[in-house]
Amino acid sequence: MRIMQAADYDGKRSVETGSLEQRAAVQSILAEVRQKGDEAVRAYTERFDRVRLERFRVSDEEYAEAEGLVSAEVKAALAEAAANIRDFHQRQVRQSWMAMRESGTLLGQIVRPLKRVGLYVPGGTAAYPSSVLMNALPAKIAGVPELVIVTPPGEDGKINPAILVAARIAGVTEMYKVGGAQAIAALTYGTEQIKPVDKIVGPGNIYVALAKREVFGLVSIDMVAGPSEIVVLADDSANPRYVAADLLSQAEHDPMSAAVLVTPSRALAEAVAAELARQLADLPRRAIAEAALRDFGAILLVKDLDEGFAAVNRLAPEHLEIMVENPFDQLGKVENAGAIFLGPYSSEPVGDYFAGTNHVIPTNGTARFSSPLSVDDFIKKSSVISYSKQDLREHGHKIITLAEQEGLRAHGAAIRERLIDFAKEEGERDQ
Amino acid sequence: MRIMQAADYDGKRSVETGSLEQRAAVQSILAEVRQKGDEAVRAYTERFDRVRLERFRVSDEEYAEAEGLVSAEVKAALAEAAANIRDFHQRQVRQSWMAMRESGTLLGQIVRPLKRVGLYVPGGTAAYPSSVLMNALPAKIAGVPELVIVTPPGEDGKINPAILVAARIAGVTEMYKVGGAQAIAALTYGTEQIKPVDKIVGPGNIYVALAKREVFGLVSIDMVAGPSEIVVLADDSANPRYVAADLLSQAEHDPMSAAVLVTPSRALAEAVAAELARQLADLPRRAIAEAALRDFGAILLVKDLDEGFAAVNRLAPEHLEIMVENPFDQLGKVENAGAIFLGPYSSEPVGDYFAGTNHVIPTNGTARFSSPLSVDDFIKKSSVISYSKQDLREHGHKIITLAEQEGLRAHGAAIRERLIDFAKEEGERDQ
Repeated sequence: MRIMQAADYDGKRSVETGSLEQRAAVQSILAEVRQKGDEAVRAYTERFDRVRLERFRVSDEEYAEAEGLVSAEVKAALAEAAANIRDFHQRQVRQSWMAMRESGTLLGQIVRPLKRVGLYVPGGTAAYPSSVLMNALPAKIAGVPELVIVTPPGEDGKINPAILVAARIAGVTEMYKVGGAQAIAALTYGTEQIKPVDKIVGPGNIYVALAKREVFGLVSIDMVAGPSEIVVLADDSANPRYVAADLLSQAEHDPMSAAVLVTPSRALAEAVAAELARQLADLPRRAIAEAALRDFGAILLVKDLDEGFAAVNRLAPEHLEIMVENPFDQLGKVENAGAIFLGPYSSEPVGDYFAGTNHVIPTNGTARFSSPLSVDDFIKKSSVISYSKQDLREHGHKIITLAEQEGLRAHGAAIRERLIDFAKEEGERDQ
Repeated sequence: MRIMQAADYDGKRSVETGSLEQRAAVQSILAEVRQKGDEAVRAYTERFDRVRLERFRVSDEEYAEAEGLVSAEVKAALAEAAANIRDFHQRQVRQSWMAMRESGTLLGQIVRPLKRVGLYVPGGTAAYPSSVLMNALPAKIAGVPELVIVTPPGEDGKINPAILVAARIAGVTEMYKVGGAQAIAALTYGTEQIKPVDKIVGPGNIYVALAKREVFGLVSIDMVAGPSEIVVLADDSANPRYVAADLLSQAEHDPMSAAVLVTPSRALAEAVAAELARQLADLPRRAIAEAALRDFGAILLVKDLDEGFAAVNRLAPEHLEIMVENPFDQLGKVENAGAIFLGPYSSEPVGDYFAGTNHVIPTNGTARFSSPLSVDDFIKKSSVISYSKQDLREHGHKIITLAEQEGLRAHGAAIRERLIDFAKEEGERDQ
């Protein structure tokens, strides 16, 4: 892998925004499903997934069949991962609160779960049961009562059994064999068989991403994920075998994945480069990892750790591993990173699968302004205002001043209607 | 105003999504500013705002001049409103947290402010100082160090002085006389005079809304606001003068505003209709309010309060006033509403200007899945994972199981590199 100066590495990859033809295709799918409902969903499923389905919903029999097709070992590991994810996300749950004043006024914030959420799960080789857990469990912990998966069926009309098993473990309440832009349309507008949702989350191909972008506002959507990345910040104390292995675990995802080492140590840089070559040889996904390392990978040499953190904060990586002596002492220097892995045993796959933190993390520099998926993504807040008579009497004229400064006389008049009555009451009392 | 059955009222208004010409115009403005920077911003400002500016940044002299143009009464009311807004939003601030296990593993969530936020403030008659406070103060409370306003200048190159005064009270750090899609472009890509931001908030016209939608993903944006609304749920105990005045305070905003009374009382319905006619007569913005009431206003008769709440939850209003006996007893029935005003003295303008809750609230039914603007909108979270050797030794093989089930061998290999060392250590110990 190329060794270079940090300042010379940009790391930005262009996010696929779709061609005009793709956008037009998505718009027409959305319009068709909106108008014709299941009939259109059925036609698109036949066309794109090459299977004709009368009913889209996954049956209890299909769940039962899937249970038999997944090994006990995988099921146990998924269940234990789910318990860890629940434990971590449980700590994110927020309470409604109220603040009371002596004047009698009460202000507060009510926190409630969304009512119905849709989760898109890709089909084929990108069907990851871990991703089902990571998207579904925060919604469950938030208290979402209706949690719906949509996912494209294979040509045999079936779904990857591990996805079904993970959905059951996560407490998904409904599952439909529909994929692509037609699935996003069904979740947004509703059809005869699929009720509309309040929010759609989960990864998908370019058609799914474009469709989500189109319906943004009609429903809530999560951030459209770009190619993912890892940055390892390491000093001489790091084990080059571990560093190389962790870089490869990201590089094998996608030819657009970025795996970057930032280090003040030329010795480490060279040792990691050698280890990468050695470990690559054995990888089944070697071609993908090699392309990713070649096109977007880099070893960035920096003067010291402070310059290293400056590079990290500029890149704002999805995953950041800090493999230096006393990593906790450095934690305060991280401004931008989705998930931060500290020390030699916090290998990125620990977070991908098992520790309990979420693996849906902002990519491609968006950790500057966004956050890993969490319980917060599945709640809504309402403000509560119970204003007292005493406060309105005391402050009403200020509200009128502000409203009239903005030329909004009816706003002032609404307050005045009350003040008139207060004045009348006082007049009566004085008599 | 028409009196009708709740089931017959839909309340949805189409959100302006822009013509193809408008979309194309916005895309070309974004591309120009991205390429040519200030030169393009200057040219668009000359074209759309009819003023040529060399420097866009508002100077200290301009702030000082504005101070002299705003009355002491308005300044004092703005300052007191700001104090109330700060107090309410301070209660939303969240702390970073860590959870430790006996095994030595530590998992946590770090909460940090965004670094740089842009706030769009409309010009002309829609320049509302209260809106500056409501958008800027949550960012300040979150700890955002750089808070930038962009707003279109008048033909004289100046800005509404009340906007400047509110910006100062709110602690805005920079202000630029740039509006329209060119302002969104400058905030997204940066120019010579304007550094790029991490997030853009604030209302704007259709060009601003389209530009925000285009740059979504490159920066974070707030939800695009639609026409606003109030629903008053009231029984016989409500004062029809208050109900009518509050409905009008919303109706005067915009001909697309919706003002709706939901009540089981025909007597109240008729009294409010009469009051509306009476109070409308005096309003300067009567034409707007009349159009809004005619086209989108309604008095919905319901069988009882439960049916009333069903209608409220279906409409998911931005503002909900509950004027019934013992309103707190009913609060749990509200599923969807942005801000909930309880009792006769919680007139909507109290929340618009003064109580301390935010007046940026989801509109047009989006309270189903989104929330009033809050401190949460200006922070980002990072996950922290410090996994212990003991835990990796105990659980490593489960992580390998999950990774290999998904065909991601390099993920498994990253764990295996550690397990090899653990086994070696144990072997050495046993000798």
